[in-house]
Amino acid sequence: MAKELTSRAENYAQWYNDLVIKADLAENSAVRGCMVIKPYGYAIWEKMQHELDKRFKETGHVNAYFPLFIPKSFLSKEADHVEGFAKECAVVTHYRLKNNPDGSGVVVDPAAKLEEELIVRPTSETIIWNTYKNWIHSYRDLPILCNQWANVVRWEMRTRLFLRTAEFLWQEGHTAHATKEEALEETVKMLNVYADFAENVMAVPVLKGVKTANERFAGALETFCIEALMQDGKALQAGTSHFLGQNFAKAFDVTFMNKENKQELVWATSWGVSTRLMGALIMSHSDDNGLVLPPALAPYQVVIVPIYKNQEQLDAINAKVAELTAQLKAVGISFKYDNDDSKKPGWKFAEYELKGVPVRLAMGARDLENNTVEVARRDTLTKETVSFDNLTEYIQNLLDAIQKNIYQKAVDFRASVTREVNSYEEFKVEIEKGGFLLCHWDGTPETEEKIKEETKATIRCIPLDGDTTPGVCMVTGKPSKQRVVFARAY
Amino acid sequence: MAKELTSRAENYAQWYNDLVIKADLAENSAVRGCMVIKPYGYAIWEKMQHELDKRFKETGHVNAYFPLFIPKSFLSKEADHVEGFAKECAVVTHYRLKNNPDGSGVVVDPAAKLEEELIVRPTSETIIWNTYKNWIHSYRDLPILCNQWANVVRWEMRTRLFLRTAEFLWQEGHTAHATKEEALEETVKMLNVYADFAENVMAVPVLKGVKTANERFAGALETFCIEALMQDGKALQAGTSHFLGQNFAKAFDVTFMNKENKQELVWATSWGVSTRLMGALIMSHSDDNGLVLPPALAPYQVVIVPIYKNQEQLDAINAKVAELTAQLKAVGISFKYDNDDSKKPGWKFAEYELKGVPVRLAMGARDLENNTVEVARRDTLTKETVSFDNLTEYIQNLLDAIQKNIYQKAVDFRASVTREVNSYEEFKVEIEKGGFLLCHWDGTPETEEKIKEETKATIRCIPLDGDTTPGVCMVTGKPSKQRVVFARAY
Repeated sequence: MAKELTSRAENYAQWYNDLVIKADLAENSAVRGCMVIKPYGYAIWEKMQHELDKRFKETGHVNAYFPLFIPKSFLSKEADHVEGFAKECAVVTHYRLKNNPDGSGVVVDPAAKLEEELIVRPTSETIIWNTYKNWIHSYRDLPILCNQWANVVRWEMRTRLFLRTAEFLWQEGHTAHATKEEALEETVKMLNVYADFAENVMAVPVLKGVKTANERFAGALETFCIEALMQDGKALQAGTSHFLGQNFAKAFDVTFMNKENKQELVWATSWGVSTRLMGALIMSHSDDNGLVLPPALAPYQVVIVPIYKNQEQLDAINAKVAELTAQLKAVGISFKYDNDDSKKPGWKFAEYELKGVPVRLAMGARDLENNTVEVARRDTLTKETVSFDNLTEYIQNLLDAIQKNIYQKAVDFRASVTREVNSYEEFKVEIEKGGFLLCHWDGTPETEEKIKEETKATIRCIPLDGDTTPGVCMVTGKPSKQRVVFARAY
Repeated sequence: MAKELTSRAENYAQWYNDLVIKADLAENSAVRGCMVIKPYGYAIWEKMQHELDKRFKETGHVNAYFPLFIPKSFLSKEADHVEGFAKECAVVTHYRLKNNPDGSGVVVDPAAKLEEELIVRPTSETIIWNTYKNWIHSYRDLPILCNQWANVVRWEMRTRLFLRTAEFLWQEGHTAHATKEEALEETVKMLNVYADFAENVMAVPVLKGVKTANERFAGALETFCIEALMQDGKALQAGTSHFLGQNFAKAFDVTFMNKENKQELVWATSWGVSTRLMGALIMSHSDDNGLVLPPALAPYQVVIVPIYKNQEQLDAINAKVAELTAQLKAVGISFKYDNDDSKKPGWKFAEYELKGVPVRLAMGARDLENNTVEVARRDTLTKETVSFDNLTEYIQNLLDAIQKNIYQKAVDFRASVTREVNSYEEFKVEIEKGGFLLCHWDGTPETEEKIKEETKATIRCIPLDGDTTPGVCMVTGKPSKQRVVFARAY
């Protein structure tokens, strides 16, 4: 195979990067930290968007669009928020170029300096709450349930394709509510939407939990998250949903007249997932042969490769395949028929394995005679010969089985590397092996910091569905309300 | 009606602005020239995107995503291109903020100055062709047929909601081809896709044509366009498709090995439509009562308003409406049932008229008794009482009729203000009345400029399907190959 990957065992980080590049998902661009999402990668992202957007609309949300730029002064209005984002802001200072007097191209025109600099949005709470101020007057204007699909920029110094890029694509929901209870309910509702999407579409099992104060979103009172576990034993935060309290309403003076005719500050949530999910998807399922995609997100679920010695055989196969593709189309199974004559079947097999196509069909002269087809599964790399009769139904069932199997595989893997650890000595040994460690912690940022400094492990979350038996902190021996989830993370 | 609009006759520009704001389509933001697209406006844009995207995919295109930022030096590589865009570029010069030592908020950190400034993309030819350089080696890598949905920034000094904004949303297709013929074919193919979309989805008739050299895209050899005519007699360029020749391939050194094993420069096209289409949609059909939306783009095609005196009546209407909405859902007609008790029917009627909902149903106690419903058409403002039996089919046909009617109305209007003009004296009189003027022109930029300076009229296009009888230029008397289309334009 021409496009050989580094194996996971040899160098996991290199394997990931090789795979993203060689499977044509994305590549680095000429702009530091910004990636190009290539058509095959973008097709997966589009499917993610479609599934998420459907769920947002089903839960009553609408899409809108807010400006790319944020006046610098807006960022300063919420103290924690600016503290969190100031160090990674792309700043627009001028609005015109002019010809360089020396004839060497263009230079920034110093006469076109902005009075107030504009920040390329790292997230949109400030510009959106400044807008909501004019939309909200009475309790009748609430709730507001907006989402936007957008690009954002955070000037990261060390970037990795999909996982951490200076510009990334995401959705950000921003909702406004009359009561604390309703805002909290929304926060949890969207967490559940994310978890449902991760598990049932991406086939990635996730832990739902709450972040510690240290790991909270800048400006939030509470950050809920879904945490996934990659095959190398490292955790990846796959989505967050923030309860913002009245912080942004305070900062932007957004009040409403309640039913008792009193002015109150509005309650807020925000929630987002990004192209980082592509990283989670890739690292959850793929293997040393390439991508393994869940059928629910594969750009094409089935690839069909003809195997022939002459034009006559190809014509016969083309005709037979046309019967099949008509049926696949009718039931909504996406497919690609690759009868490109310039590539050999072996090359194609390797290519589609690399690209993670869930089901591969190969059809040769012998198959035509026998009314059969060879069916290969990407997830198990197994093959069998199947009758052409009822093939569509067979494929439908197979796609379901693959979706379930890769999810179950990920669940089993996670279970195999999740364990309770009761002493800090043991913790230091176990954390080297990766996985989720369930430990008692005294609830203080100091202990959390100490553990992070000494072991590079962070508290991924205080799990919502975890065991709530109290205990004592593995580091300080102080009381602990429940075990929390530690891991090293992306 | 609380939300009264300025009438078109009184002040067309004010009517447009009032309508965009009051129908909740968009509003100005705190950032100069950048708009907020509100949920109702965004829902229309989403439908446009969906219809366009479907057509792009049917014609073999795939979506991808390229960086928001363009290194300043890239812009300079194509001389005409930089000339066209340098004066309206938002420039990122720094990547970090820091606390102001005086404690007054944040300031740009002078230590975080970029070595090379980044331009927020005004269009993506340069960054994309710099990327294609690595994708294209042989004729086997061609064609490349990519599109991206993105935001772009052009620092306009005078902005108007949707029509001209500093940031706008659009799609930009960028294709690469082995031959000039193929690239030209692609350019025209996409022009036809745009025309089909404008006429059959937006119900906006368009002229297809070629731009004069003066009006060409910066860097193109030929710009094809679709031109629409607004109700005030001004033209609006609704979409462009550019044949870029080998200009960008030259600038970024993109060559391929052809079938004869020789290195050749690659041929290029680009084509785009933007949120400006929202302006074209609004100004083509709407009236002094508000928006008129074609059913193909209405966020909901039908609104149902109950008219009742007591809870008992409302319960009965709710039950009857539930029967109807189940049927509407089944056939894919979108609807809103507004039984909000806090608003009167009269208010709702005015509101949905303002929002351009194509069909309004009103159902009262009398209707229940008679098994009828009152059906109001937004386009003609007519009402009739219709039997509840077969209502869904009736509505389906009505929606089709409305779509056709508003298109035909726009066609008729355009015909009524399109005329041949043969002398410059007559032209100066006629141009004041608006509309498309078909005139002979000598083909020189000088004459074109003179006409523009003296009358504010531009050549909208050299029509593809126009009368090709030669004549003499109305200004200079020199020979003219065919009549071209003049108008004042947005």
